[in-house]
Amino acid sequence: MPNSKRLNVAVVGATGMVGQEMLRVLAQRMFPSERILALASERSKGLTIPYNGSSITVEPLEENAFKGIDVALFATSGDLALIHGPAAAESGALVIDNSSAWRMKQNVPLVVPEVNSDDIKDNEGIIANPNCCTIPLTVVLNPLRSAVGIERVVMSTYQSASGAGRALVDELEEQTKAIAEGSEPPVVAYPYQLAYNVVPGGWRPEPDGYNEEETKIVNETRKILHNPDLRIVATCVRVPVPVGHGEAVFIETHDKITADEARTLFGESPGIVVEDDPHAKIYPTPHHVAGKDEVYVGRIREDPSTSHGLALWIVSDNLRKGAALNAVQIAERAIELGVL
Amino acid sequence: MPNSKRLNVAVVGATGMVGQEMLRVLAQRMFPSERILALASERSKGLTIPYNGSSITVEPLEENAFKGIDVALFATSGDLALIHGPAAAESGALVIDNSSAWRMKQNVPLVVPEVNSDDIKDNEGIIANPNCCTIPLTVVLNPLRSAVGIERVVMSTYQSASGAGRALVDELEEQTKAIAEGSEPPVVAYPYQLAYNVVPGGWRPEPDGYNEEETKIVNETRKILHNPDLRIVATCVRVPVPVGHGEAVFIETHDKITADEARTLFGESPGIVVEDDPHAKIYPTPHHVAGKDEVYVGRIREDPSTSHGLALWIVSDNLRKGAALNAVQIAERAIELGVL
Repeated sequence: MPNSKRLNVAVVGATGMVGQEMLRVLAQRMFPSERILALASERSKGLTIPYNGSSITVEPLEENAFKGIDVALFATSGDLALIHGPAAAESGALVIDNSSAWRMKQNVPLVVPEVNSDDIKDNEGIIANPNCCTIPLTVVLNPLRSAVGIERVVMSTYQSASGAGRALVDELEEQTKAIAEGSEPPVVAYPYQLAYNVVPGGWRPEPDGYNEEETKIVNETRKILHNPDLRIVATCVRVPVPVGHGEAVFIETHDKITADEARTLFGESPGIVVEDDPHAKIYPTPHHVAGKDEVYVGRIREDPSTSHGLALWIVSDNLRKGAALNAVQIAERAIELGVL
Repeated sequence: MPNSKRLNVAVVGATGMVGQEMLRVLAQRMFPSERILALASERSKGLTIPYNGSSITVEPLEENAFKGIDVALFATSGDLALIHGPAAAESGALVIDNSSAWRMKQNVPLVVPEVNSDDIKDNEGIIANPNCCTIPLTVVLNPLRSAVGIERVVMSTYQSASGAGRALVDELEEQTKAIAEGSEPPVVAYPYQLAYNVVPGGWRPEPDGYNEEETKIVNETRKILHNPDLRIVATCVRVPVPVGHGEAVFIETHDKITADEARTLFGESPGIVVEDDPHAKIYPTPHHVAGKDEVYVGRIREDPSTSHGLALWIVSDNLRKGAALNAVQIAERAIELGVL
């Protein structure tokens, strides 16, 4: 950090899965904080939660909560982010919001630090953190677009339970225990049983048949890459994994790139780890990428079904790079840019 | 059945998952059998296995085993199918082989009855049963190619443990119990833990980075559709599901077809069930399609990232339509065609 100023940081929605991960990431990265404020709803008031080997007391998210706060990391619902985000910004905090509420608004930068960190400068108090599938996708698309240009992206996702929040992670665990015991798994948190199953839904459907998640990936990728006409399509599927999203991606490029060239390119790109040696059984899986910071890429192949194309497999920790880590990285970059 | 002749049937590899399913399917469909012979390796000799409410004794797969047999359904390894397939055919049986050993040979029809049953007539004693991912894919592609023409197919799979055989199904169960008990899951049958994970490998890798499974899907789809130049690419992923394969497919068509037109087309096509109403949370999942005969299609959407395209989601029971059922349907069609 070039700046030695220490900041007052609020984590809003500190008791949720992403909020908790934000606290862990702040501590692990030794974020230059003077004070960490953990905010949550009234019913969590007084709860203590772990922070950096010690613990902090949760305080209620109320009108004056942001007084003196320099940066507020929001991990709340979109509804709460719409109400409290502007309030936090008005009281002088830089808001970095993980919900989808602000992402597509015109004067709100949507930022993946490896891709478009300069957009941070255009903020008017609120910066949006992208969707957990969009972030790893754009980290991988960014070096390709510079090297060979991107014509079209076709993606199928393998999204873990934690992307839907703690209720589904808990239910997956309960279902797993029920299956192990031979009893009927409870199905409450999601439209279908998730254990021993994959579910191509659970997100809000839209009139065109796509769901909210698929549409977010399309719109957010275009915004982050500054390419409003990018041809991109996605099918989102929930899989019985606690943490870590997989993505099978087919990318049509403008110029040719070989698999070897792509491996070298990704290997030199920030935030990417290449794990790609199928003969040695090396490719990324969510189970071993969970807890890691980087976006893992493997199964890199030339796609012979199109003139210039690549097929690849991406895995990243949806709670870290897909959410909490990216938000903290935005704050770190804001400090470097003198915005914070 | 127009033919009232009753046949002597051998199921070869009768103790494996697909062999057992063949026996169930033969009984359920009241296949016109005079006698059912269950063949397996020497070490299973004398074992009794269930058949149609009763049981039959397993006999060893040896040189004279096929005497008097009219149709031999093979569910063995490719190596055994290469040795015993020709022997069975020479002794007068029509061989329907589920391994990959014969699929791409020139004088061996590769058949999905809904798609290319006329190819059965060109057999020289051996007919091949396609890969468990190829079968549902071609069932869905077939009506589309007739209606609007197919330009390109991009597919990502969500393949269940049973596709790799009983060892992986058992290991998934053991891993599930270990997770429920908080102990370390055993990892023996597959390169990585499958429970709570997804694994983009486990098939034999090839020099171009694709694996054997992905290459089978490409080559077999081209052969079944009589379209050797079809542009098609796949990424195969194993998921922690016991039975039932999912496929996220993006199809570029020659002419435009709307999602509604596609729904109607699939609804009128043999072997397909359309389950597609996301607003009512209706889409197919492996958990509820397991045990069913049809190929289930949902999430049918127009793909705006290409001039004419569809995105959709396919699920079928890989042991039934993906293997045993399709083999028995080939035999039934052979009877109708007078080949048997």
